[in-house]
Amino acid sequence: MAEHTRPARPVILGQNQYGKAETRVVKVTRDGATHHLKDLNVSVSLSGDMEEVHYSGSNAHVLPTDTTKNTVYAFAKEYGIESAEQFGIHLARHFVISQEPIHRARIRIEEYAWERIEASDADPAPLGADVPRHSFVRKGQETRLAQITCDGSSWEVVSGLKDLVVMNTTDSEFWGYVKDKYTTLPETHDRVLATEVSGRWRFGWSGDEQPMPAWEKSYEEIRKHLLQAFAGTYSLSLQQTLYQMGARVIEQRDEIDEVRLSLPNKHHFLVDLEPFGLKNATADGAVYFAADRPYGLIEATVLREGSAARIPVDLTTL
Amino acid sequence: MAEHTRPARPVILGQNQYGKAETRVVKVTRDGATHHLKDLNVSVSLSGDMEEVHYSGSNAHVLPTDTTKNTVYAFAKEYGIESAEQFGIHLARHFVISQEPIHRARIRIEEYAWERIEASDADPAPLGADVPRHSFVRKGQETRLAQITCDGSSWEVVSGLKDLVVMNTTDSEFWGYVKDKYTTLPETHDRVLATEVSGRWRFGWSGDEQPMPAWEKSYEEIRKHLLQAFAGTYSLSLQQTLYQMGARVIEQRDEIDEVRLSLPNKHHFLVDLEPFGLKNATADGAVYFAADRPYGLIEATVLREGSAARIPVDLTTL
Amino acid sequence: MAEHTRPARPVILGQNQYGKAETRVVKVTRDGATHHLKDLNVSVSLSGDMEEVHYSGSNAHVLPTDTTKNTVYAFAKEYGIESAEQFGIHLARHFVISQEPIHRARIRIEEYAWERIEASDADPAPLGADVPRHSFVRKGQETRLAQITCDGSSWEVVSGLKDLVVMNTTDSEFWGYVKDKYTTLPETHDRVLATEVSGRWRFGWSGDEQPMPAWEKSYEEIRKHLLQAFAGTYSLSLQQTLYQMGARVIEQRDEIDEVRLSLPNKHHFLVDLEPFGLKNATADGAVYFAADRPYGLIEATVLREGSAARIPVDLTTL
Amino acid sequence: MAEHTRPARPVILGQNQYGKAETRVVKVTRDGATHHLKDLNVSVSLSGDMEEVHYSGSNAHVLPTDTTKNTVYAFAKEYGIESAEQFGIHLARHFVISQEPIHRARIRIEEYAWERIEASDADPAPLGADVPRHSFVRKGQETRLAQITCDGSSWEVVSGLKDLVVMNTTDSEFWGYVKDKYTTLPETHDRVLATEVSGRWRFGWSGDEQPMPAWEKSYEEIRKHLLQAFAGTYSLSLQQTLYQMGARVIEQRDEIDEVRLSLPNKHHFLVDLEPFGLKNATADGAVYFAADRPYGLIEATVLREGSAARIPVDLTTL
Repeated sequence: MAEHTRPARPVILGQNQYGKAETRVVKVTRDGATHHLKDLNVSVSLSGDMEEVHYSGSNAHVLPTDTTKNTVYAFAKEYGIESAEQFGIHLARHFVISQEPIHRARIRIEEYAWERIEASDADPAPLGADVPRHSFVRKGQETRLAQITCDGSSWEVVSGLKDLVVMNTTDSEFWGYVKDKYTTLPETHDRVLATEVSGRWRFGWSGDEQPMPAWEKSYEEIRKHLLQAFAGTYSLSLQQTLYQMGARVIEQRDEIDEVRLSLPNKHHFLVDLEPFGLKNATADGAVYFAADRPYGLIEATVLREGSAARIPVDLTTL
Repeated sequence: MAEHTRPARPVILGQNQYGKAETRVVKVTRDGATHHLKDLNVSVSLSGDMEEVHYSGSNAHVLPTDTTKNTVYAFAKEYGIESAEQFGIHLARHFVISQEPIHRARIRIEEYAWERIEASDADPAPLGADVPRHSFVRKGQETRLAQITCDGSSWEVVSGLKDLVVMNTTDSEFWGYVKDKYTTLPETHDRVLATEVSGRWRFGWSGDEQPMPAWEKSYEEIRKHLLQAFAGTYSLSLQQTLYQMGARVIEQRDEIDEVRLSLPNKHHFLVDLEPFGLKNATADGAVYFAADRPYGLIEATVLREGSAARIPVDLTTL
Repeated sequence: MAEHTRPARPVILGQNQYGKAETRVVKVTRDGATHHLKDLNVSVSLSGDMEEVHYSGSNAHVLPTDTTKNTVYAFAKEYGIESAEQFGIHLARHFVISQEPIHRARIRIEEYAWERIEASDADPAPLGADVPRHSFVRKGQETRLAQITCDGSSWEVVSGLKDLVVMNTTDSEFWGYVKDKYTTLPETHDRVLATEVSGRWRFGWSGDEQPMPAWEKSYEEIRKHLLQAFAGTYSLSLQQTLYQMGARVIEQRDEIDEVRLSLPNKHHFLVDLEPFGLKNATADGAVYFAADRPYGLIEATVLREGSAARIPVDLTTL
Repeated sequence: MAEHTRPARPVILGQNQYGKAETRVVKVTRDGATHHLKDLNVSVSLSGDMEEVHYSGSNAHVLPTDTTKNTVYAFAKEYGIESAEQFGIHLARHFVISQEPIHRARIRIEEYAWERIEASDADPAPLGADVPRHSFVRKGQETRLAQITCDGSSWEVVSGLKDLVVMNTTDSEFWGYVKDKYTTLPETHDRVLATEVSGRWRFGWSGDEQPMPAWEKSYEEIRKHLLQAFAGTYSLSLQQTLYQMGARVIEQRDEIDEVRLSLPNKHHFLVDLEPFGLKNATADGAVYFAADRPYGLIEATVLREGSAARIPVDLTTL
């Protein structure tokens, strides 16, 4: 076996982190014949005193990623999963406290929503009060996100969502923009505005001593505000709509200090039907081509006054 | 330019078809301030007297695929989109009737469902009765499917869905199976049963002279029956559940003669927590690992007595 | 527990099949310090006397899909993997022979190619002849396919590939096509022709008594012929190119009786640069927009004279 | 139309950027009958004096994203595409210089590699020296990446790659790690080590006055060093392999100051074949299960001494 020690190299190890990504855990809770479920995808990332494993391959400070996976399953059983955020806090605290070389733990969670399948109206009616309620259909809309980071003393919780696709079929204009020699786009006073919302929001909560936000309710409320602000904004640009969505969350939800939104402009182009003797006017109900690529991409942070921006600006690698 | 004529080759041209795939069309209908929308992905496939284009490259019989795309958009404007099936019938008839060399047209459609975003409770209340209703969020659950085939005289309509993910957290067993020398699976009397429903169903309707089924209502009812049969079946095998789902549709919906279902068994394995001193019993609410691959794959056709099986048996290439 | 027996229903069970899909098996072979590897994704599908499990849930005839997975791994160890086809034949024969209720086995295999990473020129040179050769990089081009079906007496082997993307930057024209009222496409005498080849080819080999084709060499040769026929055909339509590709295989490879090709026309549109005072002529080397959707889709079967068409016509669900 | 002015809100606009993402441009260059091609996916992101468009929807400072798309195509024609980096530099400079409100431009590029299809040995041989060479097959291995950022005075170029899948079938161990109460993983002295390399490397080059690196050669060399360092490292942990890969680049390529690598541990688990009476020892050539999820994820930065770390630590959102 080759031996490696840190060579006299002009090479420095920078930030590093490791852990098990995408542990898929489903927790069922039974309340008599009524079942509940939580369906998560948990990624653990640890960092700390890890120089030696990089230089020599010594694993003396390395808790195996397989162990972090086991911990996710064991904690789901021992403590249950109240919310993604609470579960992530529990995990992050464990790794930082129990492992001396680990100075920082970051837990990222995707959550998939399910809704109940309603009891068959064709089946014989149940005799007792304890109707079976253990059947679910996956909701399939957005994926909920949570990221919990703990460095031993302070906490940061960033929640969010992705893949929430929305569309306004009117009340969107685009005109008055800069025209240079490469500009050919005609102005429009009635267009479709569609996007796939990707958002992250940072909680003001920063430690165990403070009362925790109501994570589940907070998510539902923020999701509602994002949808309503999108729907309710008469839009002159997607930037304006984005700002209204972020500002609505900051104004309505005291627990949130920062919102980052990444909104692809999912273009719906009016099809030119003139060659076929057809008018395709928006006022009459038009036909659109839903394009894939390229697409506009609008991204911004909206902050509570006095708060620092801490969410990374790139939620995408494009 | 090279000239090609059919060489004296021991080579025969067999079945062939061509057309434009995945034309993404969105049709908005305005009813005052209330908008409706249809969001389709339309694939046209034509066949007929097409030997020459294969042998020599002569396009004298070829309607360009670009034209079939244009036709999709023009028809959406001229005739609207009542349902995917009605729209597909309209298109298929057009190609077969208007193009002498085309003997058969097959239209495949994916439909994406949207639901309304409810009006903001934070915005000023609307003054009139004509509340703006033009904001939508994509439903994101299953994709609806329709395939319409016309050979000039007879019709075949096969509708369906894919990507509908369902789960029963109990009332599923698996035991009493064959054991050979490679069998290690333990029997179970309480497992999670989850699948991603992919289904196709063939209508008895076969021509223009007959009254058409109510396509939209038919879809909603069949979807409901599939969900309820899945939920209501105490399952000893996924095959049994599949059969109950298909049979329910045949029994409850007179317009359907054949159902094909492809059900991957999305395994949820009980995690072994004994090494950590934890019991993980289903009766107490257990923790599961949701596996990706491999997965069981159960497929079957369920037919109305006296009907022929015409849906291809492979809805997947795996 | 609910009891189910076959009810007096007007409902018939049609074709059905089951098995474990997507078992990912990697087999390493060591020849001293030189390693070889086979990387497969194996899907087993069994059918036979399976009515009872659908009607009542009795698994008395059901070999668990988990067992079919175990068999894949055990056979990889016991017999090795010479080629995807040989491995599939071995598996199919086993299931049909060893399980009385199983009358037909179909094995589908995806194979991923790897190539060696060349020894570092920076490392110290190896001292002996036995240079370590155990490092690989995934080739990443097409995925190789094989489907083996056995009903106990006769065999069918269909091999193929998918995701092989090719492009000719000239020697492609498109003109002389049908124009109807929805046709707007201009004719062209110099276009890019690009496609993503999906192909299946059926071997004449139909049983154990005959000498088997040389599966590995056959694949390499057919792949070469497809590429060369694509490159060497001056194309007036993608149909013509497709036919030349299929015919080349039939003519050059005696072991093949039937080829099915599915060729999406990956459109590369000339960008209109006139608004910016720029010519964008193909003769000078042009700029193209590589479109995603929609796309033409050209599909056909090419047969050896006297052979029957047995490959299903739809390799795609669009 | 609703009017919006910046309300007296406790809400601040933070970092923001916008542009057209994923413009797919293919540029053909003709050198007689020999063609060359560049196949890019270009994403433009601009920022600067953009408060007003967020607050009021005024687009007076907004160059439309459609214009940035047009610019990509026009520049490809006017100036050609020597390399992704050079093309990105050209674009970035243009936006910052030509648009007063734009203070910073970031261009991200994905590049897809193609290789020539060799001339058919079956076709008639070419008569002249000018053999047609216009046929290509997509290489399909990694995707090359480039990111160019310009704020008007200084430049940053980060290149990289993703989706490069590599495997060592031996010379990898994992033992001597921390064991806590959740650790069950057995130690191993001979395992498969496989990963899908995602890497970014930052050039020292920071401005127009300096001589530019040879972008194409730099990429090829760094790719080679990553592969050889992976292959040549006897590994006691994936962290050690990662460090060797990064350090090799720093040491061998003077133009690079920083490397960030994200390496998923694509687990290949030894299958337990003992229940079937089979040994599955690595020394004999073993059978492995290639797992999908979860997977270890190892990430680190390797720096040239004296350089600052500037590449974001998260190349993934998991």
